[in-house]
Amino acid sequence: MSVKKLAVLISGGGTNLQAIIDATSQKKINAEIKIVISNREDAYGLVRAEKHGIKNMCISSKNLTDEEYSEKLLEIFKKEEIDFVVLAGFLKILSKDLVMQYKNRIINIHPSLIPSFCGKGYYGIKVHEKAIEYGVKVTGATVHFIDENADTGPIIEQRTVDVDDFDTPNTLQLKVLVIEHEILVSSLKKLCNEELEVVGRRVIKRDVKRGGKDEKGIDKRL
Amino acid sequence: MSVKKLAVLISGGGTNLQAIIDATSQKKINAEIKIVISNREDAYGLVRAEKHGIKNMCISSKNLTDEEYSEKLLEIFKKEEIDFVVLAGFLKILSKDLVMQYKNRIINIHPSLIPSFCGKGYYGIKVHEKAIEYGVKVTGATVHFIDENADTGPIIEQRTVDVDDFDTPNTLQLKVLVIEHEILVSSLKKLCNEELEVVGRRVIKRDVKRGGKDEKGIDKRL
Repeated sequence: MSVKKLAVLISGGGTNLQAIIDATSQKKINAEIKIVISNREDAYGLVRAEKHGIKNMCISSKNLTDEEYSEKLLEIFKKEEIDFVVLAGFLKILSKDLVMQYKNRIINIHPSLIPSFCGKGYYGIKVHEKAIEYGVKVTGATVHFIDENADTGPIIEQRTVDVDDFDTPNTLQLKVLVIEHEILVSSLKKLCNEELEVVGRRVIKRDVKRGGKDEKGIDKRL
Repeated sequence: MSVKKLAVLISGGGTNLQAIIDATSQKKINAEIKIVISNREDAYGLVRAEKHGIKNMCISSKNLTDEEYSEKLLEIFKKEEIDFVVLAGFLKILSKDLVMQYKNRIINIHPSLIPSFCGKGYYGIKVHEKAIEYGVKVTGATVHFIDENADTGPIIEQRTVDVDDFDTPNTLQLKVLVIEHEILVSSLKKLCNEELEVVGRRVIKRDVKRGGKDEKGIDKRL
């Protein structure tokens, strides 16, 4: 199986990027990071990439529409022959055209149990503020494919953490960050090993043994 | 501490009622079930109550508004000196007046991780159909206090189950039912031991040692 080529998109510190760098350099994932792109020049993730000798660049999103910005990304993805794109704390919206061209090949990590606490306005610490305010006893993180809307694509993996009486948005963020790293790496591993398939909105393990689909192309298990 | 008097409201089979019957008869909860009320005559839960010598009755909701029905309930709650009310698969809406009079004393069990898959139209097997259709990897159950709206009151306890590739709404329902019983009993135990307090929307453990509140009535931990 070919080693998959990844592009990782960031807007900030890039701790999730670091988790991918570690996993690829330790050969835990069948992939190499071809390029790291930030929409902000001061994103510390660019330094992380540089430290590990990974090609990186800032493409500023200033004065560009989502469509114009996505076109620039698309050009790079094609040039670098990117297989999968990881949004690791990337706060720009991708164009429909880009999402369509890379259908089920762009993944995102979100710090809640989607469909709770997701969608427009739910990013960063705000997600945890809302969870604390609502009083949920369990929250978590979700890795999902990107579709045309915010945080609505098919879910690859979810993991949970308990919300304790004394948790604040900050302590919760730290707890969730740990599992974000875990499920991002584990999802990427399955993705790069071609173990996943999308049936409706469900992401399930490809049935290697039975080939997965019958002669009419219909999933045998349904 | 006085033994708490419970009313359990049902509309159907009453497996959650059975869990409470078992827990009270084994003295796992500091409570006795004073009465079981069903809005349907054919609810098997009434038979369960009868078998265990628990007072039970059907109050049909036919031709009654929510307000009229709730007034009848209120009358019984007062007569029986009920401390806490458990909605165990009870499909009627209670009036605002009843909810206000029994604020933070009526609890409900819902078969999802609220705020996912809850609110109007989400009951019974439909909850699990929606979860499967959405493709979540984790679901669960929630015990919460009742407020004026459907499934929105402060959350007492949540527990999770994994959704596997081969789960159907039916298998999921069975898996979730097991944890429903667990958290319903565990929530009731805390409630009847007066261990809980509600701060904003958060239900937290009352700090017995420190008395919980300072001389101005403000929670010391906030």
